[in-house]
Amino acid sequence: MKRQAELGERRIIEIIQRHLDLMPKMPVPFGDDISAYEINNKTVAVLKTDMLVDKTDVPPGMSLRQAGRKAVVMNVSDFAAKGVKPRVALVSLGLPRNLKQMDIEELAEGLNAGAREYDCYVVGGDTGEASDIVVSVSLFGVARGDELMLRSGARPGDIVVVTGPFGKTSAGLMILLNNLRVAPRLRKVLVESVLTPQARLKEGVALSRARCVSASIDSSDGLAWSLHELSCASNVGFLIDALPLAKEAERFAELHGLDAVELALYGGEEYELVLTVKPERWEKAQQALGEVGGVLLPIGKVTSKEGLVLCKGGKRRVIEPRGYEHFMSAQVL
Amino acid sequence: MKRQAELGERRIIEIIQRHLDLMPKMPVPFGDDISAYEINNKTVAVLKTDMLVDKTDVPPGMSLRQAGRKAVVMNVSDFAAKGVKPRVALVSLGLPRNLKQMDIEELAEGLNAGAREYDCYVVGGDTGEASDIVVSVSLFGVARGDELMLRSGARPGDIVVVTGPFGKTSAGLMILLNNLRVAPRLRKVLVESVLTPQARLKEGVALSRARCVSASIDSSDGLAWSLHELSCASNVGFLIDALPLAKEAERFAELHGLDAVELALYGGEEYELVLTVKPERWEKAQQALGEVGGVLLPIGKVTSKEGLVLCKGGKRRVIEPRGYEHFMSAQVL
Repeated sequence: MKRQAELGERRIIEIIQRHLDLMPKMPVPFGDDISAYEINNKTVAVLKTDMLVDKTDVPPGMSLRQAGRKAVVMNVSDFAAKGVKPRVALVSLGLPRNLKQMDIEELAEGLNAGAREYDCYVVGGDTGEASDIVVSVSLFGVARGDELMLRSGARPGDIVVVTGPFGKTSAGLMILLNNLRVAPRLRKVLVESVLTPQARLKEGVALSRARCVSASIDSSDGLAWSLHELSCASNVGFLIDALPLAKEAERFAELHGLDAVELALYGGEEYELVLTVKPERWEKAQQALGEVGGVLLPIGKVTSKEGLVLCKGGKRRVIEPRGYEHFMSAQVL
Repeated sequence: MKRQAELGERRIIEIIQRHLDLMPKMPVPFGDDISAYEINNKTVAVLKTDMLVDKTDVPPGMSLRQAGRKAVVMNVSDFAAKGVKPRVALVSLGLPRNLKQMDIEELAEGLNAGAREYDCYVVGGDTGEASDIVVSVSLFGVARGDELMLRSGARPGDIVVVTGPFGKTSAGLMILLNNLRVAPRLRKVLVESVLTPQARLKEGVALSRARCVSASIDSSDGLAWSLHELSCASNVGFLIDALPLAKEAERFAELHGLDAVELALYGGEEYELVLTVKPERWEKAQQALGEVGGVLLPIGKVTSKEGLVLCKGGKRRVIEPRGYEHFMSAQVL
């Protein structure tokens, strides 16, 4: 009989789903970034819950204010990927007995800051005693059912795009976990990407309104895993010919003898959006992003052949379907 | 600087609220059993999150299936108190590394059972590693804004009613925590009240539809504390002249030299509803409850004089504003 530590998060979710009765007419299938409930013909309620636990999600150097903020932002990122504005948040807090009042105040400040940055309010919650600091955030929003950008609509020929370059959080996390010495300016950019993540909400909402996107996911489990999930949900493959490497991640990789491609593909908690756009909607998508001050980087094409292929410097290599996973990743760190 | 263990749950919630920006036009104030968001003129989204942690909320003798079910039911009870049917649930699970696959399956079974008993579906969630078993359930439902039974509407002269007798869970918890020997039939009733709690959903929904209730709360923190909360929110007092003692709790108190009144007032996790009803709506309320097979026990009157008074056997005593509180209660157990 396997134990949790050997099962891994994704297998655990499969096991749990097997025991759940399936709601008839689910507007969004199990396993997409958010859940939904049809309020009426036009409107769906959009719901998400994601839990931050200090021992696996809060690296050394992250303050409790930053942890509280991150717990909200990681949920907002899933709303961003579906193109939906979150309206209100509820928070369940598990607090160890020896936590000081000041620590609780910091957490609360961070929760409020994370919500307010995305025009959302914390309107309720619950606290209880726990051995770890546990911050379980639930978000609620409303959307038109036909506006949700699901994982399942990518078709061969669509353009694969992302909202920013990759690799910074992998590098930042390495610096924090191994207390690496790095030049201050480089360190700041890389570490900030971990400590103060940004959800691409305005980008997601603009793209949804412009109806440019055929499939979408956030990249909290890494670029490779996000592509893998899109590929499974849409039953397509991907050819990535312009891997979006962050220049700071390239510099860090160079200095430490690491492969920047690895950092960009298999990191996590990067919170960019990974989307597919119909070629005829490409200009419209760029325009929509430009209007909100975002960027849209084309990185490749959707293919009919299954599998993920990276084309770089004339060479092809397979992108493995692996990524950041709390339990498993925690084991190797 | 105080630590969590000394602060207690209610003080912690106050501290957190101080740091939260208040959403304009909240349909339900902070601190009521549920939170709400106005979707349109008529409809509000109703939201609740409550976290179960094994070390404070799962007594010895409770299986993981029962724990999973309880995590849902304790949230449903808050919906019941507001008269709202929950539609979907999301679950965040914190799972210790050494938890077996069978344990996870049991938890999932319980979550599904708890939801399905109240015609609700688990539609999403998240898992992560934690030191304790943490089950954070979020419920969502929709209601007409003017149908919600808040804590704040009790007026002098209203009848105080409950949906069942009190004291069984206090006794049941004592049996489980202290491994007491009790006759099998008595034990079964008392222990079952702890292991398989029932939310009074059909009762709450029927009363809300019949528009009979001026104020309402669930009794998860004990009868005394529920009355205290209603009294603060409505700015009234209570005279309780027919304390609803469960006969099994009286028998248990007799056998063990305990005060049954204490068991009934200051226990917790009893999940009955405590409501106030206008005298002219009393018959209508009884009829509404009769139609769904529930009971409505009148236990006293709302008074204009602040404070909670118990009148029993011709004697008056003050009902103290104390009750079941996770952190504090955990210390004395």
